[in-house]
Amino acid sequence: MATIKDIAKKLGISISTVSKGLNGAGDISEEMRQMVLDTAVEMGYASKRIQKLGKRKVCILIENMEYENIDQFGYEIVVGFKLSAVRRHCEVSVIPTNLNMLTQEKYDTFMLKNGFCGAFLLGFALHDDYIRQLDKTNVATVLLDNYNPNRHVGYVGTDGYNGIDMAIKHLYDYGHKKIALLNGSKNSMVTNDRRLAFLQAMDRYSLKVDPNLIANGYYVADCAKDHVGTFLSNGATAIVCASDLIASGVINELKRLGVQVPKDVSVTGFDDLPIARHLSPTLTTIRQDRVALGKSAFIMLEELIGGVSISKLLLKPELIIRDSTGPCPE
Amino acid sequence: MATIKDIAKKLGISISTVSKGLNGAGDISEEMRQMVLDTAVEMGYASKRIQKLGKRKVCILIENMEYENIDQFGYEIVVGFKLSAVRRHCEVSVIPTNLNMLTQEKYDTFMLKNGFCGAFLLGFALHDDYIRQLDKTNVATVLLDNYNPNRHVGYVGTDGYNGIDMAIKHLYDYGHKKIALLNGSKNSMVTNDRRLAFLQAMDRYSLKVDPNLIANGYYVADCAKDHVGTFLSNGATAIVCASDLIASGVINELKRLGVQVPKDVSVTGFDDLPIARHLSPTLTTIRQDRVALGKSAFIMLEELIGGVSISKLLLKPELIIRDSTGPCPE
Repeated sequence: MATIKDIAKKLGISISTVSKGLNGAGDISEEMRQMVLDTAVEMGYASKRIQKLGKRKVCILIENMEYENIDQFGYEIVVGFKLSAVRRHCEVSVIPTNLNMLTQEKYDTFMLKNGFCGAFLLGFALHDDYIRQLDKTNVATVLLDNYNPNRHVGYVGTDGYNGIDMAIKHLYDYGHKKIALLNGSKNSMVTNDRRLAFLQAMDRYSLKVDPNLIANGYYVADCAKDHVGTFLSNGATAIVCASDLIASGVINELKRLGVQVPKDVSVTGFDDLPIARHLSPTLTTIRQDRVALGKSAFIMLEELIGGVSISKLLLKPELIIRDSTGPCPE
Repeated sequence: MATIKDIAKKLGISISTVSKGLNGAGDISEEMRQMVLDTAVEMGYASKRIQKLGKRKVCILIENMEYENIDQFGYEIVVGFKLSAVRRHCEVSVIPTNLNMLTQEKYDTFMLKNGFCGAFLLGFALHDDYIRQLDKTNVATVLLDNYNPNRHVGYVGTDGYNGIDMAIKHLYDYGHKKIALLNGSKNSMVTNDRRLAFLQAMDRYSLKVDPNLIANGYYVADCAKDHVGTFLSNGATAIVCASDLIASGVINELKRLGVQVPKDVSVTGFDDLPIARHLSPTLTTIRQDRVALGKSAFIMLEELIGGVSISKLLLKPELIIRDSTGPCPE
């Protein structure tokens, strides 16, 4: 493990300048400070300093996910994380990121500079700089619904296989045979899992999979209008959606086309956001317990900080049956 | 939630008799006590009483797994569990079970009677009474390597997909093409996972799967002699084993047949038990961090007790390269 002396030697500067850089003292240039921090990260000094800090500090970095309002997906996740953190005497900073911040500074440097010993990353895409840097990070990091092979990185999520299976079984019990899947964006691990889960479940209940009844949209309501027509013309009597937002778009599009839910077509969502109860008809959906996701993310982060290399932690989903599903029409 | 009054009413006895039964007072018959406890469990009274107990108590129930010696699979798991429990001020009882105990008393009744608010079950088979009762339990329960759909039951394990993939990649890099799998006992979730992981990994590296090179043994050394001959006559140059004990049997059988490891045939294990370092040649294997498994089991149990419905928690395995693997012979 590198010492302050090693860093000073490598940069050809004094030990006191390194110390000032690491501690954020005001009398050295910002440029020098950045160089000291980057070198400290490179030489593996990071964790040592973090260990010395008395109060443990972690952060939630949020990119591209709404979380400020209780109706939004991220809200309860952040609440759950903070609940667990408070009980374990750990301070949490919630930091919305932006392109400027992500490109200006490396992830590990950001963490070291701010004295964070771990982070929960929410809403990042695979091509984001911080996500790509995770292959080599030494910082304990938890992702939502995304896998990284690095031993310091784990992920939390909801068991989508179990969830999709419950939805398909529910529709099967109602006599549906032609079941469509409107999935989320491509290039997402969750989207891929839900597709495989759909194929597996259809097989389990001996239902035929029609490629015309499987499509990728995006995780927004708007994507429904591109696919619902095709599903209908291929005889779908039920549409399984990869999120509640997609399902809300599907219900609207069905209404626009004069198709009744659930009399003509049943619809299921995924997430159980508050809107699921307010849609008309109310939405049958697969519940992700978001408070529990947040709590689990924190306990996982704590274990990763302590050197327990958790790969993944999946919660049990729950099927919430409401009014958007019903018997298959004759 | 049922009250003491409800239990008294149901059994047609006085409230004070119910109270004596629940608290283990000496002046009622053992038969009456058992009836009170069984009724309390049936009526969902259990968790309420447990909540009232000041100090939290959990147990590890061990069936058919050796744990008393550091060389044995269960030892470090128990150590890891206790380490986490102590840090969280929770008392742990380690209880080896026996057929008598398992048949005499229901799982939930046993837990209530002894004031345990959760249990970690080690080494049980799917047909054991306690495992079958888990479908309906209200007691927070963690299993090693076994799934149950009940929301109060979760499982910890090591990511076998990742592990087997690393072993196959390692052999592939050494030029092996005819790779055999000597798996564990049938009817085990882990055995099934390892078979699927093997098929997936072979496919990933474009290696042909030969059904003659896949066999189920048992998780003991002795099973090797039934399969190694068949593997050799079908041209295997590498044998991936589902445990270190199986691998030790395979190495002995190869020696007996005059085949050199790794010059003629490479062998890999799974677990990284202490014996892996003492075999000759030392064993290349997929490490399960058993202390971390125990620690994870405890934090999972704690979350289940708190109502967070964790389905599974998987650790990252590690490939430990030693002397039992080498380049594929010409």
